[in-house]
Amino acid sequence: MAISELERMLSGELYHGGHPELIALRLKAKELIDEMQHSYGDRSRRIEITRKLLGTSDDDTYIEKYAYFDYGINTHVGKNFYMNAGCVILDCGRVDIGDNVMFGPKVQIYTVTHPLEAELRIGGQEYARPIRICDNAWIGGGSIILPGVTIGKNSVVAAGAVVTKDVPENVVVGGNPAKVIKHIDNGQNE
Amino acid sequence: MAISELERMLSGELYHGGHPELIALRLKAKELIDEMQHSYGDRSRRIEITRKLLGTSDDDTYIEKYAYFDYGINTHVGKNFYMNAGCVILDCGRVDIGDNVMFGPKVQIYTVTHPLEAELRIGGQEYARPIRICDNAWIGGGSIILPGVTIGKNSVVAAGAVVTKDVPENVVVGGNPAKVIKHIDNGQNE
Amino acid sequence: MAISELERMLSGELYHGGHPELIALRLKAKELIDEMQHSYGDRSRRIEITRKLLGTSDDDTYIEKYAYFDYGINTHVGKNFYMNAGCVILDCGRVDIGDNVMFGPKVQIYTVTHPLEAELRIGGQEYARPIRICDNAWIGGGSIILPGVTIGKNSVVAAGAVVTKDVPENVVVGGNPAKVIKHIDNGQNE
Repeated sequence: MAISELERMLSGELYHGGHPELIALRLKAKELIDEMQHSYGDRSRRIEITRKLLGTSDDDTYIEKYAYFDYGINTHVGKNFYMNAGCVILDCGRVDIGDNVMFGPKVQIYTVTHPLEAELRIGGQEYARPIRICDNAWIGGGSIILPGVTIGKNSVVAAGAVVTKDVPENVVVGGNPAKVIKHIDNGQNE
Repeated sequence: MAISELERMLSGELYHGGHPELIALRLKAKELIDEMQHSYGDRSRRIEITRKLLGTSDDDTYIEKYAYFDYGINTHVGKNFYMNAGCVILDCGRVDIGDNVMFGPKVQIYTVTHPLEAELRIGGQEYARPIRICDNAWIGGGSIILPGVTIGKNSVVAAGAVVTKDVPENVVVGGNPAKVIKHIDNGQNE
Repeated sequence: MAISELERMLSGELYHGGHPELIALRLKAKELIDEMQHSYGDRSRRIEITRKLLGTSDDDTYIEKYAYFDYGINTHVGKNFYMNAGCVILDCGRVDIGDNVMFGPKVQIYTVTHPLEAELRIGGQEYARPIRICDNAWIGGGSIILPGVTIGKNSVVAAGAVVTKDVPENVVVGGNPAKVIKHIDNGQNE
């Protein structure tokens, strides 16, 4: 049986973003985001839109103004997720976010990437790598998380960091590219 | 006499952002920002909204599209303030901006922060530190100013800088984290 | 014959952004951008708006949500241009973009700059330097391109890079400030 272009994209294979199935899904996400911009005064309406927009969420999920998701349905968030203003989630690949995660403003999560070689890239090929952000992580404002990265439990990404590789548990990373700048005592050594 | 949650937040004490008093204030800011998006063709209307949105402003204050303020009323600007598109001001703490200050696009001012320890952070506690930007400073596009920072008179923050500590007068700072990269001759040594 | 303020700005001379001719042109760009926010479901309408907004474009030009252009008419793009969400183009100077160029989200292109000396800057003087992005370049998300820069053919600007000087062909640049971090084999040495 033929797989859908959405399945192909999520599997990590090369796919074409211009496929009609994917265009329709992205348009649906845009419409929900537009609705959300003016629903902050109506909690139940905002929750209803959030549930339609994301693949997994709950009544405590909060998405601030000017958010952007490619699909939304490929993003799955745990309990108490808070996303501040102007975040961008390119969820061509699956984005898994644990419990109690906070995003500062203008955090950018990119699962999608393109070949470095010009000829392949301009042919429209792209591929996606999943991103995982574990429980209790705090992703600082203006930071960028690149394809395939996992952010460990309890860790903190400093404002403006560009995270190019996995981050272990219980650390602060910062800088461009991001490096470990501090270990956090969360009782893990008791 | 009990102090309000707004006073607690401005005092630098731990507070809870989910307090109804604070939720109502943030919603008011959002409504004003939405109105502003479509008021650029009507100068007097734009000024009226700006005056309601900010704690202190005047007829020459200019706020470009896609701005975001947590409260607005905790931000106080001097004469000739110009803020380019997509800036974010998390004014949980007081933000004081002097005369003749210019912001490039997507400047981010964060007065609010969270504990590094996961258990404290996920309990919802946060605290704010005031930010001061002195007369004639130019804050370059895409830069981030962290809680408690003061930017000195006449100084320039280069595009994309992440400013983690105070900046003296008459210098250019740049990089992540930002460092002094140049001294500016503003006649201060005459 | 007197030249217009638009011509003065594009020529690289000092100009005043508060000139009524320039204010009217920026307002027109804002109105078109607002219209575009809700036209993604109607391809022909979106193309019509894009053609009015930019100086040069074609039916394959795609501008994602939350874009910002100072003028739009000073930006000229080649075939297959794709601009992801939240990009900012301060096109006070001319912006030339070649064929098959891709922008990630929140890319910022600044042609305009201000004097470092406070007295000149607060007098409102500014000047612009053209930016050129050559064929097949990929400008990564969250990167910033400064006035006067040229990005060479086939080159890649890594996510979050701050590009302060020209980038040669067939390289990857990254960091703040951006440096060459890789050479790309596009068959140029065959």
